[in-house]
Amino acid sequence: MRLFNKVGIVGVGLIGGSLALGIKKYKLARKILGVSRHKESIARAKHLGVVDAGSINLNIIKDADLIVLATPVMQLIEILPKIFKLAKKGAVIIDVASTKNNVIQVANKFTDKDKIFVGCHPLAGSEKRGVVNASPDLFKNSLCIIVATKIKNASVLERIKKLWHALGALTLELSAREHDKILAYISHLPHIAAYSLMRVIPIQYLKFSAQGLKDTTRIASSEPRLWEEIFLTNRQEIIPLIKKYEYSLRYFKSLLVKKDARRLRTFLKASKYRRDKIL
Amino acid sequence: MRLFNKVGIVGVGLIGGSLALGIKKYKLARKILGVSRHKESIARAKHLGVVDAGSINLNIIKDADLIVLATPVMQLIEILPKIFKLAKKGAVIIDVASTKNNVIQVANKFTDKDKIFVGCHPLAGSEKRGVVNASPDLFKNSLCIIVATKIKNASVLERIKKLWHALGALTLELSAREHDKILAYISHLPHIAAYSLMRVIPIQYLKFSAQGLKDTTRIASSEPRLWEEIFLTNRQEIIPLIKKYEYSLRYFKSLLVKKDARRLRTFLKASKYRRDKIL
Repeated sequence: MRLFNKVGIVGVGLIGGSLALGIKKYKLARKILGVSRHKESIARAKHLGVVDAGSINLNIIKDADLIVLATPVMQLIEILPKIFKLAKKGAVIIDVASTKNNVIQVANKFTDKDKIFVGCHPLAGSEKRGVVNASPDLFKNSLCIIVATKIKNASVLERIKKLWHALGALTLELSAREHDKILAYISHLPHIAAYSLMRVIPIQYLKFSAQGLKDTTRIASSEPRLWEEIFLTNRQEIIPLIKKYEYSLRYFKSLLVKKDARRLRTFLKASKYRRDKIL
Repeated sequence: MRLFNKVGIVGVGLIGGSLALGIKKYKLARKILGVSRHKESIARAKHLGVVDAGSINLNIIKDADLIVLATPVMQLIEILPKIFKLAKKGAVIIDVASTKNNVIQVANKFTDKDKIFVGCHPLAGSEKRGVVNASPDLFKNSLCIIVATKIKNASVLERIKKLWHALGALTLELSAREHDKILAYISHLPHIAAYSLMRVIPIQYLKFSAQGLKDTTRIASSEPRLWEEIFLTNRQEIIPLIKKYEYSLRYFKSLLVKKDARRLRTFLKASKYRRDKIL
C-alpha cells in the first residue's frame, strides 16, 4: 500500500532506520532518502540497504512528500525552521521524539495548511542504538502516540496513522501536555529509577547480578546523550514525579524501621496488583 | 552421579520443586520425599512427578540423608529445631532462603558433627511461583552462594557444592554477613525500587507501558509474603541502602532543577558504564 512517494529521513539511527526498513518491507513509499550529520552514517545506511540515497546535506529531502525527523530532540528543534523552509508544498513533516511539548510549540510557529506537522512518538525502542540494530518490525505490537499541531488536517492525520498501522503499531491521539505527563510516569521515571539504582551498586558486586537486577536496570544502558535531552526537556513533569517516588521509598523505609509487617504486606500487594495489570 | 540416597524437601514450591526435578533429571539421588503444609500441594507435586512420595507430616523425611528446607524464611527458622531433632545421624540439612544471618544464627545452635547444616542461596528464581513453574534447569548458569555454619565439614561442603554444580550452577562461599550485605544491594534494593515505582504510577496509565517499564518493574510481581519476610529479616542491611538510593535520586532531581546538563550527562554515563559491566 503506497502511502507516499519520496520519504526523507533525517537521523538514520535505531528509530529512523527501523522506519525506513519498515516502509521498504511493507512498500509504503517509492524511495527513501537519508540525511545524517556524518558521512560514515550515510555510507553505513546505504550499505545496509536502509536508504536508497543519502547525504549530509538537508537539500536532498526537498522533494520528499514525507519528512521524518528522527534526531535527538534538541537537534530536531534546532533544524525544524530549516526543514519547514526547504520542504515542498504539500509535504508532511513528522518527528519521533520522546518529548512533545517543546517540539509542538516550535512546530506550531511554522506549520500551515501547505506544510503540516504531525508529532509522533512510537513507544518502541531499545537500549541498543544505531542503524545496525534497526528492524522493519520494531514497531510491531507497539503503540504510537500521535500529537497534532494547532492546524489539524484530518486527511493528513489519517495518512500518518495508516503509516503506523501498516508498520504494526496501534495509534492514539493525545495533546502534547497529556503525552509529556504520561511519558514522565511510564518511561522517564523508570529510567531515572534505573540510572539512580546503578549509581548505588558497588562495581565489585555486579558479578553477583541475577535476572532481577538485570531487568530492573536494563534501561540504564540507554544512550546518555538522548536521555539527557529527554530529562531536561520534560523536567517540569519529571521533577514532581521524582518527589512522589522519593515519598514512596521513604514510606517503604519507615515500614522497615517500624517493623510494620502488616502495612508492608499491604504495600507489596498493592504494587503487585498494579504490576500484574500490565500485559 | 548419585550424591544422596533419600532427599527430603520441605516446601515444594518453585525452588524446592525445581531442585527435586533437577535431582531426578541428573540422577543425584534415589528417592525424593516432599513435605508441605497443604495436602493439595503434595498431591500436585506427586501428580507432576516432582516427588516420589509426600506428606504433611515432617516424619516422612526422618530417613533422608539430605534435607532441603525450601519454605519462606520465617517458617524455616520456626521448624529448624524440629528438623534437627528428627533428622537421622549423618544427615545434611540445607536451606535455600534469600537471607542468611538469621538462618545461620539459629542453625549454629543445633548443628553438630552428626547433623551438619549448610546455608545455600541459589540466585535463580522468578516472579512466577509454585511447583507448576518448577524446572529441572532453573539453576543452570546461575550462582549459588554457600554459607557454612560454625561447624565446617569440608567433605559435606564439597558434596553440597557438587550438588549445585551438577544442576548447572556455580558456587561461591561467603559469610552470612557478606551474603546479606551483597544481596541487599543486588536483589533487595532493586525489588524495593520496583515495588515503590509501581506505587507511583497511576493505574489508568498502565495501558501505555512499553518494554522499559515492564522490565524495570517485573520483580514487583514477586510474591508479597516471601518478600515481606526477606525485607524484614534483612532490614539492618536494607535501611541504609534505601537512604543511599534516596540520596542518588535527590541528586538527580537537583541536576534537573538546576538544569545542570554537564553533571547530568556525567551521572548517566557513569550509570551506563556500570550497567554495561553486567553480563
